[in-house]
Amino acid sequence: MSILKSLKTLTLSLLVGTSLISGYAVAQQAPAKPKVLIFDVNETLLDLTSMRTSIGKALGGREDLLPLWFSTMLHHSLVDTVSGSYHDFGQIGVASLLMVAQNNNIDITSEQAKTAIITPLLTLPPHSDVKEGLAKLKAQGYKLVSLTNSSNKGVKAQFESAGLMSYFDARYSIEDIKIYKPDLRAYEWVLKKLNVAPNEAMMIAAHGWDVAGAKEAGLQTTFIARPGKALYPLAKKPDHVVKDLHELAALLK
Amino acid sequence: MSILKSLKTLTLSLLVGTSLISGYAVAQQAPAKPKVLIFDVNETLLDLTSMRTSIGKALGGREDLLPLWFSTMLHHSLVDTVSGSYHDFGQIGVASLLMVAQNNNIDITSEQAKTAIITPLLTLPPHSDVKEGLAKLKAQGYKLVSLTNSSNKGVKAQFESAGLMSYFDARYSIEDIKIYKPDLRAYEWVLKKLNVAPNEAMMIAAHGWDVAGAKEAGLQTTFIARPGKALYPLAKKPDHVVKDLHELAALLK
Repeated sequence: MSILKSLKTLTLSLLVGTSLISGYAVAQQAPAKPKVLIFDVNETLLDLTSMRTSIGKALGGREDLLPLWFSTMLHHSLVDTVSGSYHDFGQIGVASLLMVAQNNNIDITSEQAKTAIITPLLTLPPHSDVKEGLAKLKAQGYKLVSLTNSSNKGVKAQFESAGLMSYFDARYSIEDIKIYKPDLRAYEWVLKKLNVAPNEAMMIAAHGWDVAGAKEAGLQTTFIARPGKALYPLAKKPDHVVKDLHELAALLK
Repeated sequence: MSILKSLKTLTLSLLVGTSLISGYAVAQQAPAKPKVLIFDVNETLLDLTSMRTSIGKALGGREDLLPLWFSTMLHHSLVDTVSGSYHDFGQIGVASLLMVAQNNNIDITSEQAKTAIITPLLTLPPHSDVKEGLAKLKAQGYKLVSLTNSSNKGVKAQFESAGLMSYFDARYSIEDIKIYKPDLRAYEWVLKKLNVAPNEAMMIAAHGWDVAGAKEAGLQTTFIARPGKALYPLAKKPDHVVKDLHELAALLK
């Protein structure tokens, strides 16, 4: 280790409060357990694959276009955010389905696109581990809240339909600030609402871009590796990767 | 027309300088011809469909995943922008291909992803109307510049390969500000570089999100309706929709 590098390590160690043994930095301790767990909703708690049928039906049988529709919706939520516009997630979902249809020479009307998306999106079933996992985390004493790109009305309908209302202390929607995740301001807004420091909160999501944003905002992060959900390779690694909420509950015991 | 509405129209007319006849506002005149034409590059000038083969090969034959790869790349360019990060468009392209592969249970290495993307992206052919169209616009006296999400080095290689260097007065890449289009700051930055007012410039793109951002930034906009490219239905309409650069040249005569 060069002198310069040693000095840098020493300075860093003093700054972050890690201990030094024989002049070498000991790895920084894992952060304390979070005070509050912030859950993403779509795909993280609720299973989107149930929409394959309705999307496929609207697109003349092209069920394979579900991921392209969802990616187009996510892209355009950020198009709105960076260009100073806002439409709710349902509206963007309908618009995205119309774009995917047009790009694939499939004729659908706005009404058909709306039918294919709105009701199915509001009645997504929870993944099989979700209710038991949330119950365990709640029993372990954690405060559970949700933070979603869905509208306030949307997430309320989703939670009622999926039977998730009773597990959560609060529901937050980016609709209140009209800035989509993973814009850092979305996480900062929720931290302020919760009155906690960034590292006292943990963002839990099945989207690499969501845990990437939360990590940049200073939160602890856990990625739930749902089938078909890859991490964003260029982002900082999340603190934990788990396969479901049972594994998260065991981790936070 | 109600009195209130008439007053509003009158005030607006005075503010924007339109003339009034018999107390009714005359529709605002079409804006003057632009001083400078700002072209998007990928898909607008260069034909991305030529990458179907290389992407398909890397994804075990799944050529149908080209649009999902491009959408994932666009989404993650904005994920970077809103979370305060930056990676160049090529890096994001490689990362996006790795994500699409993993989400579809296809095994590829970073090296294979890089091979599938970097060289093909830098050697995209121009659409068939591009050279003649640019030549006409140049002959009509317009200043032509490009504004792309590709890196400076990337777009230089792309233009050299496609034989487009001689048509442009300047090339701009968002790499210089590390903020991806359609963030309003990207357009504002270019206007400042060009020393023109927003409505003295026209953004020309085959992407609904690009003309949407430019319109919000106050530029004139033209959407080139390339095959498989739909407008974003929730954005303000572009000033013009054309099928190719010949039609644009005729329009700006």
